[in-house]
Amino acid sequence: MLWKRNCARLIKPIAHPKGRLLRRSCYRYASTSTGSSSSSSSSSQWLKYSVIASSATLFGYLFAKNLYSRETKEDLIERLEMVKKIDPVNSTLKLSSLDSPEYLHDAAKIDNVVEELKSLLGNNADNYSDSKSDLDAHSDTYFNTHHPSPEQRPRIILFPHTTEEVSKILKICHDNNLPVVPFSGGTSLEGHFLPTRIGDTITVDLSKYMNSIVKFDKLDLDITVQAGLPWEDLNDFLGEHGLLFGCDPGPGAQIGGCIANSCSGTNAYRYGTMKENIINMTVVLPDGTIVKTKKRPRKSSAGYNLNGLFVGSEGTLGIVTEATVKCHVKPKAETVAVVSFDTIKDAAACASNLTQSGIHLNAMELLDENMMKLINESESTDRCDWVEKPTMFFKIGGRSSKLVNALVEEVKSIAQLNHCNSFDFAKDDDEKLELWEARKVALWSVLDADKSKDKSAKVWTTDVAVPVSQFDKVIHETKEDMQASKLINAIVGHAGDGNFHAFIVYRTPEEHEACSQLVDRMVKRALDAEGTCTGEHGVGIGKREYLLEELGEAPVDLMRKIKLAIDPKRIMNPDKIFKIDPNEPDNDYR
Amino acid sequence: MLWKRNCARLIKPIAHPKGRLLRRSCYRYASTSTGSSSSSSSSSQWLKYSVIASSATLFGYLFAKNLYSRETKEDLIERLEMVKKIDPVNSTLKLSSLDSPEYLHDAAKIDNVVEELKSLLGNNADNYSDSKSDLDAHSDTYFNTHHPSPEQRPRIILFPHTTEEVSKILKICHDNNLPVVPFSGGTSLEGHFLPTRIGDTITVDLSKYMNSIVKFDKLDLDITVQAGLPWEDLNDFLGEHGLLFGCDPGPGAQIGGCIANSCSGTNAYRYGTMKENIINMTVVLPDGTIVKTKKRPRKSSAGYNLNGLFVGSEGTLGIVTEATVKCHVKPKAETVAVVSFDTIKDAAACASNLTQSGIHLNAMELLDENMMKLINESESTDRCDWVEKPTMFFKIGGRSSKLVNALVEEVKSIAQLNHCNSFDFAKDDDEKLELWEARKVALWSVLDADKSKDKSAKVWTTDVAVPVSQFDKVIHETKEDMQASKLINAIVGHAGDGNFHAFIVYRTPEEHEACSQLVDRMVKRALDAEGTCTGEHGVGIGKREYLLEELGEAPVDLMRKIKLAIDPKRIMNPDKIFKIDPNEPDNDYR
Repeated sequence: MLWKRNCARLIKPIAHPKGRLLRRSCYRYASTSTGSSSSSSSSSQWLKYSVIASSATLFGYLFAKNLYSRETKEDLIERLEMVKKIDPVNSTLKLSSLDSPEYLHDAAKIDNVVEELKSLLGNNADNYSDSKSDLDAHSDTYFNTHHPSPEQRPRIILFPHTTEEVSKILKICHDNNLPVVPFSGGTSLEGHFLPTRIGDTITVDLSKYMNSIVKFDKLDLDITVQAGLPWEDLNDFLGEHGLLFGCDPGPGAQIGGCIANSCSGTNAYRYGTMKENIINMTVVLPDGTIVKTKKRPRKSSAGYNLNGLFVGSEGTLGIVTEATVKCHVKPKAETVAVVSFDTIKDAAACASNLTQSGIHLNAMELLDENMMKLINESESTDRCDWVEKPTMFFKIGGRSSKLVNALVEEVKSIAQLNHCNSFDFAKDDDEKLELWEARKVALWSVLDADKSKDKSAKVWTTDVAVPVSQFDKVIHETKEDMQASKLINAIVGHAGDGNFHAFIVYRTPEEHEACSQLVDRMVKRALDAEGTCTGEHGVGIGKREYLLEELGEAPVDLMRKIKLAIDPKRIMNPDKIFKIDPNEPDNDYR
Repeated sequence: MLWKRNCARLIKPIAHPKGRLLRRSCYRYASTSTGSSSSSSSSSQWLKYSVIASSATLFGYLFAKNLYSRETKEDLIERLEMVKKIDPVNSTLKLSSLDSPEYLHDAAKIDNVVEELKSLLGNNADNYSDSKSDLDAHSDTYFNTHHPSPEQRPRIILFPHTTEEVSKILKICHDNNLPVVPFSGGTSLEGHFLPTRIGDTITVDLSKYMNSIVKFDKLDLDITVQAGLPWEDLNDFLGEHGLLFGCDPGPGAQIGGCIANSCSGTNAYRYGTMKENIINMTVVLPDGTIVKTKKRPRKSSAGYNLNGLFVGSEGTLGIVTEATVKCHVKPKAETVAVVSFDTIKDAAACASNLTQSGIHLNAMELLDENMMKLINESESTDRCDWVEKPTMFFKIGGRSSKLVNALVEEVKSIAQLNHCNSFDFAKDDDEKLELWEARKVALWSVLDADKSKDKSAKVWTTDVAVPVSQFDKVIHETKEDMQASKLINAIVGHAGDGNFHAFIVYRTPEEHEACSQLVDRMVKRALDAEGTCTGEHGVGIGKREYLLEELGEAPVDLMRKIKLAIDPKRIMNPDKIFKIDPNEPDNDYR
């Protein structure tokens, strides 16, 4: 049972005393009901002290770190060289010396560093792995749009227990010029954790030991968690307190990845994306320095917004080990309405009318007719008689069933004005789950559908976002293009945000090529409509060229300067988001 | 009339053809009603082309800029020297050579640069000023907590017309090492626009010519404006379309300053702060490079979140010239409730209960008994019989008056549970305005109250933010401290965000010193409660030391590296937020 699962995690004893301490306190929270204000305020007092104490330790530690772990003169000269070389005064932007930055390549020396890292982790085989299956699992997934070559594998995967261990790991890798790839849920799609640098990449996986709830402040509606915690576990825990997490990314995503990728999902329309849900982060910088971006106020204008910079930096600026995120109060009553339309245009117009009318829905999702057909075929929901037309899924919440029903009527009348041809809504929680299930199984339905035909089939999943006024036009043109290709395809859209996903199935190299051209045209269509090459998946390796096309050279050069200022040795997740050297040749990503 | 005021701005012809072009199109918007979708979609087509065209021009310009306006090898060596010097491997952090960075001091050379800048602006005296009154008005205000010495004045104030002019100005100042201070509404409080470097500061004021609405996309609920536009004008314009701007900072604040300071106000509880309301920005970097941070999707995870970095950077990283911000749909019905309590504790508990119960109010403001007393004394509202107790002001909105009334009942019952001793709410719009007026005149009431006694009196206005669970405790202790000082004082809080302002009146140097010690203890109280030294006013000069105390050295060193990477010559708004050289002596700020 979920309750047990959380408590198990909460009381799981681990090496680090602070961890145990805080876990015990969390257990106290979990074991109270929704926490009477007295008990929770005494606990929060108690927690305040423990946090002040541990902060003090952290800052003391920090100061020592400051003294010894900063970049050396050599690093800085290297940074100077790099920045000088990307100075487009050399208009050809030749950076040949950066084609292969000075990572450690001497096998014997790498062996020594790896031994040093192992002994840092107590030479305990539970704390690291270099088994083929683990290396493979940390390099690629079925869902990736870009796959590594067989040689592109980490040298070793490390499982740290604490922020301090992560700091020591980065210090060692920094001193020895070894590339580091942070890994959490591994659910990203654009090759975010792909080890591009052959033979010497150290992958740091927080999911094994750094997956706990650190501190829950119900009165403040915030919760502090470790980066390896799966978002579903966070959401389940909050659910037991009548709360929810603002984001709902893909199954299995962990908080670290949610932050790195600036994730969102179906809730973003109401509760915002990760950017809007983060309160503070503990980040380990490439040289091992630990920074906490903010304290715990809900609002602050104190200094540069480091939260804003690190959310979405895809592990290229450091490793996020802990974060405090906002909690939202669950609506007292909520239902789901499923509304089908003859055309995407009508469905999108309905979504737009609802937003313009100021009705605050909790989600507004669009599935196209192909998607509905695949859901029926895959039999992945209880019912298999979904209307196979463009269909909107609305989450309608309020203070009471009575108010929700009134809102349902408003939604219905706006849907009818936009020529909907069916309008179902859930009468009870079971129906609500049944209806929403169809939205949640979308991706799996595509997999089932194609796999039943051909085991070799793969799905290319991509996303773009455009101003909502352009939503139906861009989807319409994209669908026509995909239909013409004869490839199995479907579209799922976060209609409220102008963000949509395309699923395209390919089997042969020829189909892969056709698929990649469809995606290329879809992205260009979005950019032409003042949109972005990715609304919530991130850039990784797969969309580096599109980022340049979207923003132009100057903003990307600005990102390069920020990257080089924070990571002059380029050890953090190399080659992701942009090429430091614009002239660097592509690695072999298939 | 407002309508005329907006149209006047919208059709005001200015030198830059793009400006005229877009202004004309905006006029078309303004002159339609709330814009039938057909006319607005054709306009938005038309606008799209003009924007694509102008973007193309911009990027072409950008590329040329890239070729010629990047930092030179000398800049980079200077940056290397700086960064090397803040490398705490030199543990004493000695940066003596940075005490006075290499700004241009040769009077004759400065004269030449100023002449070059004047001629860039057509040698037209309307486009710049060095009159004493203008120099004074651009150096200090009555509201500043920290005042410059009489010598600390800009050399000249420039009034550019376009982003391209701003870019040329920065290029010239960058090439000649002249400090630049961006200026918009001049309503900040912590000395943000104080010209710290005597004799050679160039102030760039966007309010005179760069104050227009550039593009309004009603269907997308976003609007693009120039940085010199007062937020009230933006909000008035949106009001005519049934929309509102998410932030409501101090009177006269302009969008550029709102962004620089990450402003918020009473709406933030419902609509978020500037961070959550920005879609994209056009920023001129210190070397004159123009970057546009994003296109126009509501959601994007494409590359580093430059919006997040520039919002709140207080003009130290560049000059924001244009921004696209979100628009929110006005609630169909809204009322104001004014509820008094015997204690701050009860008022804060009521606010907390409302949030925890999931009731979405549009504002939740707390005024303490001193504030209510000053409002009565100042006679700045129609009624002068406000209950002189801690008082909550609630904005309660909904889909209909019926629903709002139901919500009012819920709020009332929660207020009664928390021992409120009066509960008024507005029956109509006039009463609504009358009730809310009391909240809006708070600051002015303090001024009137003390000025009536003594013309020499000044008000120290400051803010902090804490987790909401700590709100009443920190306010209670702060009030006790202030009462003991015998100085006139009052507190106004954004209860939903845990953010509150203290107003303290001082007359003599002794009172000023007492005042500054009260503020010091208030900030430390907030930091001890896991809060921040500023929730919405920013750091400027006044809170640099508190930022360090709040976050510690490591995060501020990280900010320094980002600053030096983007502004190696330190020309942008020097000395604000943090000292680049921690050992640099304080300038003479009184």
